[in-house]
Amino acid sequence: MAMSNTTVQPPHTQSPDTSALDYFKSAISDEIRYVSEQKAAGRGIVGFYCEFTPRDLILAADAVPICLCGTSQNTISHAETLLPANLCPMIKSSFGYALTGGCPLLNDSDLLVAETTCDGKKKMYEVLSRDKNMHVLELTQKPDEERAFKHWLAEVEEMKEKLEQTFQLKITEQKLRDAIKAMNEERRLILAIQELGKHKPSIVSGYEVAQTRYRVAGFYQHMEQMENFLTMAQERIAQGYQAAPIHAPRILLTGCPTGHGTEKLIEIIEECGGVVVVQEACSGIKGVYEEVSEQGDPLEAIARKHFNIPCSCMTPNKKREEMLKTLARDYQADAVIDLVWQACHTYNVESVLLHDFVRNELGLPYMKVETDYSSSDREQLKVRVQTLLELTQ
Amino acid sequence: MAMSNTTVQPPHTQSPDTSALDYFKSAISDEIRYVSEQKAAGRGIVGFYCEFTPRDLILAADAVPICLCGTSQNTISHAETLLPANLCPMIKSSFGYALTGGCPLLNDSDLLVAETTCDGKKKMYEVLSRDKNMHVLELTQKPDEERAFKHWLAEVEEMKEKLEQTFQLKITEQKLRDAIKAMNEERRLILAIQELGKHKPSIVSGYEVAQTRYRVAGFYQHMEQMENFLTMAQERIAQGYQAAPIHAPRILLTGCPTGHGTEKLIEIIEECGGVVVVQEACSGIKGVYEEVSEQGDPLEAIARKHFNIPCSCMTPNKKREEMLKTLARDYQADAVIDLVWQACHTYNVESVLLHDFVRNELGLPYMKVETDYSSSDREQLKVRVQTLLELTQ
Repeated sequence: MAMSNTTVQPPHTQSPDTSALDYFKSAISDEIRYVSEQKAAGRGIVGFYCEFTPRDLILAADAVPICLCGTSQNTISHAETLLPANLCPMIKSSFGYALTGGCPLLNDSDLLVAETTCDGKKKMYEVLSRDKNMHVLELTQKPDEERAFKHWLAEVEEMKEKLEQTFQLKITEQKLRDAIKAMNEERRLILAIQELGKHKPSIVSGYEVAQTRYRVAGFYQHMEQMENFLTMAQERIAQGYQAAPIHAPRILLTGCPTGHGTEKLIEIIEECGGVVVVQEACSGIKGVYEEVSEQGDPLEAIARKHFNIPCSCMTPNKKREEMLKTLARDYQADAVIDLVWQACHTYNVESVLLHDFVRNELGLPYMKVETDYSSSDREQLKVRVQTLLELTQ
Repeated sequence: MAMSNTTVQPPHTQSPDTSALDYFKSAISDEIRYVSEQKAAGRGIVGFYCEFTPRDLILAADAVPICLCGTSQNTISHAETLLPANLCPMIKSSFGYALTGGCPLLNDSDLLVAETTCDGKKKMYEVLSRDKNMHVLELTQKPDEERAFKHWLAEVEEMKEKLEQTFQLKITEQKLRDAIKAMNEERRLILAIQELGKHKPSIVSGYEVAQTRYRVAGFYQHMEQMENFLTMAQERIAQGYQAAPIHAPRILLTGCPTGHGTEKLIEIIEECGGVVVVQEACSGIKGVYEEVSEQGDPLEAIARKHFNIPCSCMTPNKKREEMLKTLARDYQADAVIDLVWQACHTYNVESVLLHDFVRNELGLPYMKVETDYSSSDREQLKVRVQTLLELTQ
């Protein structure tokens, strides 16, 4: 796929070494090989579908944590032979991989850790559990109540026990502390890449940043290549490279997560001359914004960090507004675009509140985009996005 | 509206006194008057939108419990000016009443008790809470885990405190016991009416039984009229009255709840010559199947009874299958029809599992009907239902 920012990149600035970018674009094949090797070497493989699932805990069980969220349009028609069509494309795509057996990472998984974050996933997991070894985490959804946190903590403790049983080992406090440290380092690298978006003029496009997200956590190659990506960015600064003109409208993208193959909206924004300076979604900054505390009880620290994720499944989800306020300021956003995957009820309804918050509290233009993984609405979306960008200038 | 069973009622059998039936058809006006009087007399008025909300607790606070679930197509277009169109009609209809101010029962409510049972409602409540005094109950959703029950129990305790604060009173243990007793009596009456469906040949139609459901609990008139309805049924038996021919296909209706004005599917089934012998939904038998225990701690008993409701928001929801098995046997069902309101993800996905259960475990024909409150698909549904009924004969 061509880089999406070719239309906005000033011709006189040439990007330095882009090998890190190339790496992440095709990292899935390295991941498949790595997971297969790790499995052969006796390590456990644990798949999951949500940012609320603590990778730290899976690493502490010396297992490989893999985010299995489906980002392919191709598996959706398979899913729809069993699931209702009126579900979010991420759920259908993920389920389609299970039906077709087309995802080696899923096929290699010894255990799936599911969660009760949204209705569609919660019930899809029941269908999936007919064929897969599954453990369900119950996420309580009143984020401001200590009692809700205590229940979540107990669920995280139960997940620890499940991992211990599954892989016949003991997750010691030291293993937890080591895993937290490793994941914090990984989160810091991801965050550092996201924070490149703060530069004005932009030194990286939103599309480039989105490319650096991957599925397998705790994989040394990814860490090396994230370092390389950061080095590339420093070289770009040194060379005066601009990923977008200084007056390109700076977009804060919020809402549902994107993934490899579902960057449609990011591509459109940047094809239209804007630049996605930060993505608030869990495919962006949401999951790495806060670290796991390295003080105190490690399991409680893991539970706390994840409980604080400002997902629309929470009620009320005031932390999302706080985060958007901070991001809009720090990344000098000119407008907010809210991506809602079709049939994602929580983000879809929360948009009613977000619209008012962005317009009235942040004083920024707001646009909600409800779409799916297909490209059928591309031209229509382009007109809408183009119009929004015009209005910001 | 004409009684829907006129086409199947044998001409030689005349129904006895139908005054109870007439009463329930227009009971809303009595309810509006009653609630207004009670409010004027100083009683608290508490609205809610879900069978999980314990009416017992509201009665124990000497307040009037009102189910506010919207069943009007007319308010949906109003709701869609703010909410996404892709939400279940019950959520939109309920919200539409809040926007239009067209429901005196809602307008009279001092407090709304909401819950986290499904994504659409959970987030709709956040929008509603901008204008209404609201308390949110968090329902944990792993029905087989004692820890989940404990959290729910704590939420029910918090609801008690909220009621005490709101209405400046103390809910004593005696008040709880009295309220449980009163609600158990009411539930027994509702259940007795539902159980009339066991008769073969049918002495009441599903449409008639559906008419007897109401909104305001603890209202003496309703109790009297339910007694009258039961008396009418006894007279019908004595007179050999048949609400449907003995060979009319007996339908177990499951899935989403119906209400006054949304009996479309029941009407169609009975217009096509079938008879709905029992409705498993919370507008049918689901909420009254189990009583609150009058032994032990009353608050725990209230929490337990409600936690046991086999709603599709639970994961997994095995109790629904158990209930369907019992109902199919006790009501001599010939087929199961599963009503799914459009965009109700939990019932929609659970249908995948239910299809297999009904076909393989119960050995009965199964049909899922996904529809909304409009009548636009009436003729199409009629063809499908007619075909199903043919296949059962």
